[in-house]
Parts: sequence; C-alpha cells; structure tokens
Amino acid sequence: MPQQLLTNFRSYITAQQLFDPSQRILLAVSGGSDSVVMARLFKAAGFTAGIAHCNFQLRGEESVRDEQFVQQLAASLDMPLYNVRFNTEEWAASHQVSIQVAARELRYGWLETIRIQEGYSYIATAHHMQDSVETALMNFCKGTGIAGLHGILPKQERLIRPLLFTDKDVLTAYAALHGISFVEDSSNITDKYTRNFFRHHVIPQIQEVFPAAIKNMDGSIARMKEAEILYQEALAKHRKRLLFKEGNTFRVPVRKLQLAVPLQTIAWELFRAFDCSPAQTQQVLSLLDSESGRYVETSSHRIIRNRNWLLITPVPLEEAPLQVIEASQSHLSFGDRQLRIRRQERGTETIPATPSIAWLDADKITYPLILRKWKQGDYFYPLGMSRKKKISRFLIDQKLSLPQKENVWVIESAKRIIWIVGMRIDDRFKLTQGCRRVLVLET
Amino acid sequence: MPQQLLTNFRSYITAQQLFDPSQRILLAVSGGSDSVVMARLFKAAGFTAGIAHCNFQLRGEESVRDEQFVQQLAASLDMPLYNVRFNTEEWAASHQVSIQVAARELRYGWLETIRIQEGYSYIATAHHMQDSVETALMNFCKGTGIAGLHGILPKQERLIRPLLFTDKDVLTAYAALHGISFVEDSSNITDKYTRNFFRHHVIPQIQEVFPAAIKNMDGSIARMKEAEILYQEALAKHRKRLLFKEGNTFRVPVRKLQLAVPLQTIAWELFRAFDCSPAQTQQVLSLLDSESGRYVETSSHRIIRNRNWLLITPVPLEEAPLQVIEASQSHLSFGDRQLRIRRQERGTETIPATPSIAWLDADKITYPLILRKWKQGDYFYPLGMSRKKKISRFLIDQKLSLPQKENVWVIESAKRIIWIVGMRIDDRFKLTQGCRRVLVLET
Repeated sequence: MPQQLLTNFRSYITAQQLFDPSQRILLAVSGGSDSVVMARLFKAAGFTAGIAHCNFQLRGEESVRDEQFVQQLAASLDMPLYNVRFNTEEWAASHQVSIQVAARELRYGWLETIRIQEGYSYIATAHHMQDSVETALMNFCKGTGIAGLHGILPKQERLIRPLLFTDKDVLTAYAALHGISFVEDSSNITDKYTRNFFRHHVIPQIQEVFPAAIKNMDGSIARMKEAEILYQEALAKHRKRLLFKEGNTFRVPVRKLQLAVPLQTIAWELFRAFDCSPAQTQQVLSLLDSESGRYVETSSHRIIRNRNWLLITPVPLEEAPLQVIEASQSHLSFGDRQLRIRRQERGTETIPATPSIAWLDADKITYPLILRKWKQGDYFYPLGMSRKKKISRFLIDQKLSLPQKENVWVIESAKRIIWIVGMRIDDRFKLTQGCRRVLVLET
Repeated sequence: MPQQLLTNFRSYITAQQLFDPSQRILLAVSGGSDSVVMARLFKAAGFTAGIAHCNFQLRGEESVRDEQFVQQLAASLDMPLYNVRFNTEEWAASHQVSIQVAARELRYGWLETIRIQEGYSYIATAHHMQDSVETALMNFCKGTGIAGLHGILPKQERLIRPLLFTDKDVLTAYAALHGISFVEDSSNITDKYTRNFFRHHVIPQIQEVFPAAIKNMDGSIARMKEAEILYQEALAKHRKRLLFKEGNTFRVPVRKLQLAVPLQTIAWELFRAFDCSPAQTQQVLSLLDSESGRYVETSSHRIIRNRNWLLITPVPLEEAPLQVIEASQSHLSFGDRQLRIRRQERGTETIPATPSIAWLDADKITYPLILRKWKQGDYFYPLGMSRKKKISRFLIDQKLSLPQKENVWVIESAKRIIWIVGMRIDDRFKLTQGCRRVLVLET
C-alpha cells in the first residue's frame, strides 16, 4: 500500500518510540531508492532532518554522480547536507580489513561524528523489512544462536531504522507513485556478494512456494525477539546461581555447572563475558572432568580448575612501557610511529573523518597524559556509545589479528582513556556543541 | 565419512539414549536409500529389529515393486517383515484431508499398532540431518515461533530417529561403498512439493554461498533446542505468576498481565492451553482495555473480563444425546451411522489398520458402554501416547472442519473414553501381548 506508507511510517515511529518529533534526525542517504524515499517521508511528515552522504570513491564517476544527486536532493528538500569522501581502499589496506568492513567502519564512525558535532539526536538508516529478513535468514544458514534471528533492530544506541515496518516493494511502488527519482544504491556494499545472492536468488525462489515469505519471516523474527527476552530472563537466573564475584576473581561451582541444563548454552553465555570463544568454551567444559591446576586462557582471563571450583582471574599484566606527555609537548615517537599534538580554537571546520586524527574537547583534558600499550582490564566509552566497553572486546569486534592487537596504544588522562590511538576516541571527551577549544592528536 | 558411519551411528544412539541394545526396534522402511541404509546399520550393529513397510498404492506398479523390494530386503537381513496396503486415496476423500495428511496418519497409526502388537519398544524412522534442517528452514519461511526451529527431534514418545546425526550425502556414499541397492523413496510423500522444492532448489542454492549450510543450520538448530529449554523455564515462572486455578475456572490478574514482558508471547503461550488461536489471543489482549462482561470464546473455553480479572471457564456443555450399550448388544444406529459390536478370542490375526475398526482388550472393558457425541472437557490417551490429550486439541490436530467436528462420537466405559469412533482408540485399552479376549467395534 504505497498510499498508506506515510501514515504507517508515522505510526511505526510512535509505536516503537524511535524519536520525538521535536528531535533532529540525521539521515544516511546513499541516493538509492530506499534512502531517498526515507528522506521524502521525513520531509512529508514534517520532521526536522539533515542529510549525510558518504562517497567511498569505489566506483569512479558513478560515485561522483551519486554524490551530486544527493546534493541536489538535499537542496530540493531544503535540508542541511553533510558529505565526505573516503579513501576506502587505502584505509582497508592499511587496517588489513575487507573493503566491506572498511566502508562500514568509516561510514558509521563519520556519521556519529557529524551527529554529535551538529547536534542531531539520532542517525536514521533506510533498512527495510527485507534487509532484516535477509540478515536473519543468512545468520540461520551460517549457524546462529537465538540473537542471530532477531534480524535488524529498530533502535540501537543512537541508530534508528524507521522503515523496518515495510517491504522493499512498497518503497519502490511509493517512489513510482510520486515520481521520485533515485540512483543505483551504493550503500549496500556491506556483505555485498552474499546479501545480493540471497536477495536476488534465494529469497525469490523461496517466494515461489511461500509467496508471503518476507512477511512470514518477519513474523518469525518478531517471535524470536520476544523469545530472546524470555531466554535472557532465564539466563540471568542461571548466572546468579553460578557466578560469584570476589574482588577481581570470579568463582563457578563445578558440580552445579555440571548439572546445569542446557549445559552448552549456559556455559557459552557464562564464559563469553571472559572472552571465551566457542572452541574455548568446550575446553572449559572439559575442565569439569579434569584435575586441579588445569586451565584455559582466553585473551583476557585464565579459567582455572581449583578443586570444586573454576576460578576466573584476569591474565597477569605485562609491565607495559609508558610515556608521559606534558601540556607543552607537540611531538613524540612511540614504537615505530609518531604522535603530533596541537591545540586550536573551535571554528567552523569539519571534524576530520579519518580515525588517525582525534579531535577532543581540550577543556575536559587533565595533564599529564599517559601514552601506553593497552592492557587487560582497560575499558573506555567508544564514541557513540553510552556504555563502557572493554578494550579486549572492542579489538575483537574490530577483527584485528593478534600481532595487530599487540600493537594497540591508548592515551589516558586522569586514568580515563581518551583515545585508542588511530582507532576510536572516547565518547566522554568528544566535541560537543558548546566546545571552544580542541586538542588535536594525530598519528 | 561413510567408513565411520557405523561407529557414529552407535555413538549417537548411546549419547541420545535412544534405546537400549536389549530392546527390539521396529524400522519404518520405504525401500529408499535412507531407510535401507538404516536397516543395514541395525543389522551391522547387532541390534534386534523388524521391518515395517506401507504400500500407499499411489504409484501403481512402482508401489508393488517397492513392496517386493522390501520383502526381499527383510529376508536377506533375516528380519521379521510387516506390511500393509492402504487405500490412501479413498481414506483421504472420506476424511476430507490431503493425500499427504492421509498417508502420514495411516502410516503412523499402523506402525504404532504393529509396534504394540508385536512388542517392539520403539519405531525408528530414517530422517537425517538434511530432513531436520529442511523442516526448520521451511518453518522459518512459514513464520514460526521458537519451537518451529528445533528441527526434527531424535526422540518423541515411541518414535526415534537414529540417523539425525548424519547428512544425506554420507548415507548415499555408504550405500555406494557397500554396494547397497535401493528403490526410489516413496516415504517422502509428506509435504512432498514444498519439501522437494527446498531440497532440490533452495538449499543447493544456499550452498553456493555457504557450502557448509546443512551443518551450519544443524548448529543453529542445536542452539535453538537449548534456547527453547531456557525459554520454557522463563515461561513456567510467568505462568505461575499469572494463572490461578479455582475449581474448573482459571483467573488471570489483568494488571499483572498488562505489565508482562514480552506480552505477545506470554499471552500466546498462556491462552493456547485454552484452545486460543493466534487471532483470538489478540482479542483476549484487547479485553485488557475493555469493560467487565466482554469475552472471547474459543472452541473449549470462555475468557471473560470481570473487573480486575480475566476468568477462564469451560464452555457450557450442550445436553448431548447418549445411548447405553449393554454387554449383550451387537448392533445399534447412531446419527446416520451404524455400530457393530462383537467379541472374539485373540488369535494370530493382524490387527486391522483401518481406523473404522477398533480392537480393544475386552478384559479391561466395564459395561454398560456409553455412546455419545464428544463434549468440551473430554480427554483420552490417544493410541501411542503416554499422556492424556484433550479431544478438542486432538480434533484440531486432525484438521477436521467444524461440521466434521460436530459429528464426532465417542464410546466410554466406566467414564473413560475407549474410542473416538472411526478415528483413534485409547492407549489404555489397546491390545497388549498377554491379551486373550478382544472387543471389536466397527462403524
């Protein structure tokens, strides 16, 4: 029903409490039909929004065409425009990640920077029901736990997906009905091959026997989301029964764990908090039948069999070299790299999108700064997140290799980490609207 | 690894506690490669087994060829053979169900009869990992809750699936390695079109991007099985908090239910026990905002808003006509049908497979018998099940139309239902090995 799209769009935003009409929303617009329809819906609904566009410079002239198209769109909708060009290939090579991962990292990092700098409440992406269904179906085919089946969530931290209620077909029909033009969508670069294969081959085939497959699977996903809440509820009870904290050590009673049902899942959920991989979880389970003294070592913890208990202790810290940085300093060397430091007034310049440069609120910084390698137990508040995160976990999510992980440095101020050097600043030290003085760190 | 198939087969039976080597197992053998390999594995492992084959008479000469093939197989493996011919098309027409449903009903009904009559502990079917994965994937595409994703279970009541651990490819390779011959499999008639479409088109396509898709999905299924245990655990707590029994009425506190999270799933699981359909569950949820006196009526219960409670009461019984049958009687009419009654000594004859004839243990019967229409609240122990089942639920599972449901009759003895006329006998009155006298009822 393309005629009802605007009404349903408004209802979905209210029902899912995605945002308040008084809030300003930053729209991620590639120029493809989904994101263009999203921008039109924001306009038609009377919400206040700005448009952000990333040019990944991966498709030559076509990338430039898309950029120009989005510029014109923003002008015609009378919305502020923010755009950026990334040297995606170079970044991917230097970080040893795939083009897909590079594009995703660069995109979300930059969007969050713009959101904060320009005072938007949320970033909206144009994911729709089919994207969500594809994600869940692919996860099922890859071998997933229950969390893999909830599809794409309507709201996560500062990200919202106000089109999840509707199918791709409806968006396309709406664009046709209203004569909305768009360009080939380049934002779907993430997981491009596999996702497109599912989109263009697997799902249409399933629709031959189940014509309502997308809606059906969306129903499965809704049920899984609710099942997951009950799953987590039961899990919390088991955690309370099985995990006892004493200082920086945790204890798990061997006998009680052995009798836990279902053992595999409870063990996995219990030990993953200590950076246990699925394979290591199996090793931990074999400790249940071993003698005292045996242990499994994860990237952050040792899980040791000690008579009737498993003891979980942080991996002993290696004495890390550290350097003190005084307020007057503008340059220093560390490892095989350089750090440049300067202070400047906050003007109207755009915050650089490259992760090798950090712009921080100078008024929140206390000297001296400490530059050191990260260590187990370190945590920070990654830019865009309101909750703290262990650096060990952050590095896993960044898919760094072991040698890369061993060469990660951090800078701290008054015992709080302000920057994972070359990767991510801390949310507590970001530039906010009232900020007047900027500390610029560059590696 | 076809070389390790036998070892893995033995290990799986032990690990899943499918049966004890001293028990006798009835093998459902169609003559297709899966079931023939299963029979060979039972022989090679030294277990005691018999072979049961159904000829559904749906494929003319080919059906006869399969039947003869299985006869020869049983002889060559030196196993007892049981076979039956069904007039599947006629049965499907008279019961107004699809051929697929008819074949499944006839097959499992007959297998269970043979199992009991011949003293086997379990019925084994040759479902393998791919069957299980297909089931879960189809359920996901149809729109399922968490229970739809556990795939085929290795053990349910008296049914076991000892090949679930292995993939179809391994079975085919084993057959080739050992020069095992087989015929085209006719047992896969259930869900034939959809399942075969998934088997031959959808899954091979998914394997192009995820070559290990079957194993991956089997991993997803294993995780779902465990997640489901935790889900049920949390659900049991909610049920205890929300459902209070008083005589034959249940009460649900409105305010508490309104606050329950996740509401949809908890409500669905709570009210389905009272034969609430998904649509009716939504109607019940709207009672939470309605005034006193409104109600939703399911096929067995009324759920009534009464101030701060929902009251759940059985639907008032209609005065049903009933007929008393004395021990001397051999014939009577009911509705537009006839009932013939006779008693005979237990000989070596085969128990008839047609559901219009019931053979019951005459020594367990108390006179007079009562013949009446079924009513809400009736329950029985369906043949092959150790738990009682509400007749309302049984009729739903049989996919009977409303007019068909209204014309279902039961016969009871000393207030216990012994037969759903023309459909299923009660497990408590079935013929067992020591039985000497048979009560035969026929409609």
